[in-house]
Amino acid sequence: MTTTDPAATSSIPPAHAGVPIHATSEQLDSVKYDGSGLVVAIVQEVGTREVLMVAYMDREALRRTLESGRTWFYSRSRQEYWQKGETSGDRQYVEKISYDCDGDALLLQVHQEGRGACHTGAYSCFYRDFGEVQA
Amino acid sequence: MTTTDPAATSSIPPAHAGVPIHATSEQLDSVKYDGSGLVVAIVQEVGTREVLMVAYMDREALRRTLESGRTWFYSRSRQEYWQKGETSGDRQYVEKISYDCDGDALLLQVHQEGRGACHTGAYSCFYRDFGEVQA
Repeated sequence: MTTTDPAATSSIPPAHAGVPIHATSEQLDSVKYDGSGLVVAIVQEVGTREVLMVAYMDREALRRTLESGRTWFYSRSRQEYWQKGETSGDRQYVEKISYDCDGDALLLQVHQEGRGACHTGAYSCFYRDFGEVQA
Repeated sequence: MTTTDPAATSSIPPAHAGVPIHATSEQLDSVKYDGSGLVVAIVQEVGTREVLMVAYMDREALRRTLESGRTWFYSRSRQEYWQKGETSGDRQYVEKISYDCDGDALLLQVHQEGRGACHTGAYSCFYRDFGEVQA
């Protein structure tokens, strides 16, 4: 009979340092924040190109993300900053951040660690499709 | 010497019918619109999985998209509906629409026609990266 060490299966590997991105002030000035000071941020897995989640950043969350190389967001409901995977271990290490033509959306390409991006346990937050037959 | 027929190179091929998606009322009720009646919609090319653009839909734009199988959005600045590619020919035929865990973001997987999704002429609206050396 094989036993499983619960500590081994539940343990979260330690974070490693992300790679900072050195944005120019001209690039940073291209970002247009909405009336609440937020910009929408799409997170995509750089390997599979799967879209994982959508969240919001303000200027400070973007600064922290660029500086740490890991994703930081601003929670509109909780009104606080959160670093993805800080408690769950489902961390996102940033490979590339793009901004769109009119500067009001960001696209982050990341290496997703752990189970995935969704708080439900799903790998991607987009796990439901319109028109699909429900099981 | 070879000549090129200008009419042939500039003409826009006729649209073909999209494939409607039959969403259930339960699925539609899962979508959470913001205070302005809008939900953010991410458009991804289904073949290359490239993220093309971000726009907004209200209930009616989503209804038109599901019904026509082509993307419809609501312009916040112009306060009007627009069908992608209607004048440019850069049409988006919808393959799949997903909604996220908390229902406040949509992901549309499309077949992008024409030059691409961006009004600048770029294929994707996300053609600029932070930290990239500027040419």
